[in-house]
Amino acid sequence: MSNIQAVIITIGDELLIGQTIDTNSAWIAQRLNEQGIEVARRVAVGDTKAAIIDALDEEWKKASIIILTGGLGPTSDDITKPLLCEYFGGKLTVDEKVLAHLKEMFIRRNRPVLERNLKQAEVPDNCTVLFNEMGTAPGMWFEKNDKVIISLPGVPFEMKHIMEHVALPKLKDRFKSDAIIHRNIFTAGEGESFIAEKIQDIELSLPPYIKLAYLPDSGFVKLRLTGKGTDIPTLTAELELKQQELATRLANIVISMEDYPMERILGDSLKEKGKTLGLAESCTGGYLGHFMTQVPGASAYFMGSIVSYDNAIKQNVLGVKATTLAQYGAVSEETVIEMVQGALKLLNVDYALSVSGVLGPQGGTDRVKVGTVWMAVASKTEIRTKEFRFFYDRERNKEMAAKNGMLFLWRFINGKLS
Amino acid sequence: MSNIQAVIITIGDELLIGQTIDTNSAWIAQRLNEQGIEVARRVAVGDTKAAIIDALDEEWKKASIIILTGGLGPTSDDITKPLLCEYFGGKLTVDEKVLAHLKEMFIRRNRPVLERNLKQAEVPDNCTVLFNEMGTAPGMWFEKNDKVIISLPGVPFEMKHIMEHVALPKLKDRFKSDAIIHRNIFTAGEGESFIAEKIQDIELSLPPYIKLAYLPDSGFVKLRLTGKGTDIPTLTAELELKQQELATRLANIVISMEDYPMERILGDSLKEKGKTLGLAESCTGGYLGHFMTQVPGASAYFMGSIVSYDNAIKQNVLGVKATTLAQYGAVSEETVIEMVQGALKLLNVDYALSVSGVLGPQGGTDRVKVGTVWMAVASKTEIRTKEFRFFYDRERNKEMAAKNGMLFLWRFINGKLS
Repeated sequence: MSNIQAVIITIGDELLIGQTIDTNSAWIAQRLNEQGIEVARRVAVGDTKAAIIDALDEEWKKASIIILTGGLGPTSDDITKPLLCEYFGGKLTVDEKVLAHLKEMFIRRNRPVLERNLKQAEVPDNCTVLFNEMGTAPGMWFEKNDKVIISLPGVPFEMKHIMEHVALPKLKDRFKSDAIIHRNIFTAGEGESFIAEKIQDIELSLPPYIKLAYLPDSGFVKLRLTGKGTDIPTLTAELELKQQELATRLANIVISMEDYPMERILGDSLKEKGKTLGLAESCTGGYLGHFMTQVPGASAYFMGSIVSYDNAIKQNVLGVKATTLAQYGAVSEETVIEMVQGALKLLNVDYALSVSGVLGPQGGTDRVKVGTVWMAVASKTEIRTKEFRFFYDRERNKEMAAKNGMLFLWRFINGKLS
Repeated sequence: MSNIQAVIITIGDELLIGQTIDTNSAWIAQRLNEQGIEVARRVAVGDTKAAIIDALDEEWKKASIIILTGGLGPTSDDITKPLLCEYFGGKLTVDEKVLAHLKEMFIRRNRPVLERNLKQAEVPDNCTVLFNEMGTAPGMWFEKNDKVIISLPGVPFEMKHIMEHVALPKLKDRFKSDAIIHRNIFTAGEGESFIAEKIQDIELSLPPYIKLAYLPDSGFVKLRLTGKGTDIPTLTAELELKQQELATRLANIVISMEDYPMERILGDSLKEKGKTLGLAESCTGGYLGHFMTQVPGASAYFMGSIVSYDNAIKQNVLGVKATTLAQYGAVSEETVIEMVQGALKLLNVDYALSVSGVLGPQGGTDRVKVGTVWMAVASKTEIRTKEFRFFYDRERNKEMAAKNGMLFLWRFINGKLS
């Protein structure tokens, strides 16, 4: 067995003018990786025939599998299908199954079927149709010179559905490859340089088929070990040994050994202890509640959040005293303490977290600079507070506040606050 | 003048295994576009010397400007700097300004400066340093054969800061190019096929230097007109004429003529009318509040949100009756009406929106299927309700609910509910 390589080509002017962020490629790469298929490169090109053909000609040489997304819609800027048909020397013909499905979709939605929609049922006669249950544009599978070219719609949920149900199983049958296995360590509180220094000898001891990567994000650093090989049990054992070695060395900053987001790590802690959580948010505007409810099953521990963006809500709903707001301001230790007490009581929860800050660009004062965020965590018997300073733009400051709030609470719950 | 083309090369294994979503490229593309520089392609490669050199060799032929991001950190998987130094035949030497800044950053954070950090102050002697105020890795600007190669750190806020303050102004001086101008029309309620059919004649009447693109997303379709030329006033006038023509034809589905997100469009409506907004969220978990507070200055109209994820919060905080929950369930017209009334009163606002649904994967019943979301909007004199059905996964259903909630409210406020 050897390494099977794939290239992802995404098609669409919206990717080149920055109107759309490409989330498809990351998702496809994850799924291929799980199947032991490496992604060698990703390329994004515009909606022009020359650019697409140029990319096909070049990437063709670099991989056994080419996955294209985009350009399959019903409008004039969608040119992928006729182009591929011509590229592989085929002819467009109507696929009866696709046609029937398409008509049914329009009937269900009470919409007339237009001529341009009917054209979506035409497929090149030299491809295998990858049926699209979720939409009107079918996926296509071409084979030539032992290589596979897969064309998928760019709409994320349609693409994902075809990949999961049709394309990935078909790729698994078609290619056998080395396994690629990842193990992660999720840390918080130290920078990547510090970590690199601390684990230098372990990093140097890694065999050539195990690679270590540092992924810093919002004050967290994820360490990722990637192993490649054919003997999966042995490789897995070896990776887990190294993972354990790293975790022991970094014990005081390790948050999790899984590649889970902070909301999942915090949620698992709460679930394990059978405790409930409530929030009192100001500057995060509901973002913390959003994170907590991204995890399926969050209703087991997450009760709710009082987003008291305006001071009147802090007073009238959470019961923060007018004198506290007047004397110390909304962004102060005193206010977040009263907010967290209000949330604990009003939401009747075991733990609460409150957040109040100035994220920018406006709203800073001499006393409270932009980027200042006060937080309080509380159980029924204890309150702890912390002042944070974030130095970035509004969006990033908000994300930092949300993620660091979850970390603060996780440490509180697990007795890890210094 | 002619079109200046750029290629973006992003470096990092995390992009190829799907651990990171590339948001840098979209941001860079937008900024370059504003300056009339077209992005011809985007390529993502891994942290290996061969892959980076291969990409440089190839992309070199395709554009006048190459922008690289990533691989400039202090750890062993960061190989871009020595590689570029060698590629352009230079020698690494310490830059005193970078060194001083670096030491100061560590002092400010109370951290020791490690040997590997000091190495970040070394730069190739054949490049111009693009000073990085926000971090320790300097950007680099190389010139060769009339082409420019810019290397930037992969950390988004560091990259953005260098681009905005150093690289973009320098590119503006260096290259003169045709202007690229965009005009948008933001619609809701009809699919792209329907729209394409309806505006076919206008699309056919566009001159070759004006392109129309369809960008469907979450039940919305954005139409983007892109014009290229040298005579900016004439081109702008022509684009705006076509934009107006399209808007007139699509009058009943147009939401905005700006490329603003729904939260900004709704926020602008509220600000204009001098009205306040409060939310009662259940399944969206705070996501709606998050959207509303993404807009700087939202505190002028957004008061807060009661995230009543658990039924106890719906009862105890919003005042939903126990009998209503028992008889009709949390996901029902009756419940969202009581939720919106509770929010209106408790938050003392002019308008309120309530949302309760089942986003999946679990939690569906025979009566209330996964994807069902009830919403109510209210002013002090009127309440309107609507049942939505979303067919996707938890994350996408949540996004659809949030965006369609904002649209529902916008229509209500502007007297556009049918």
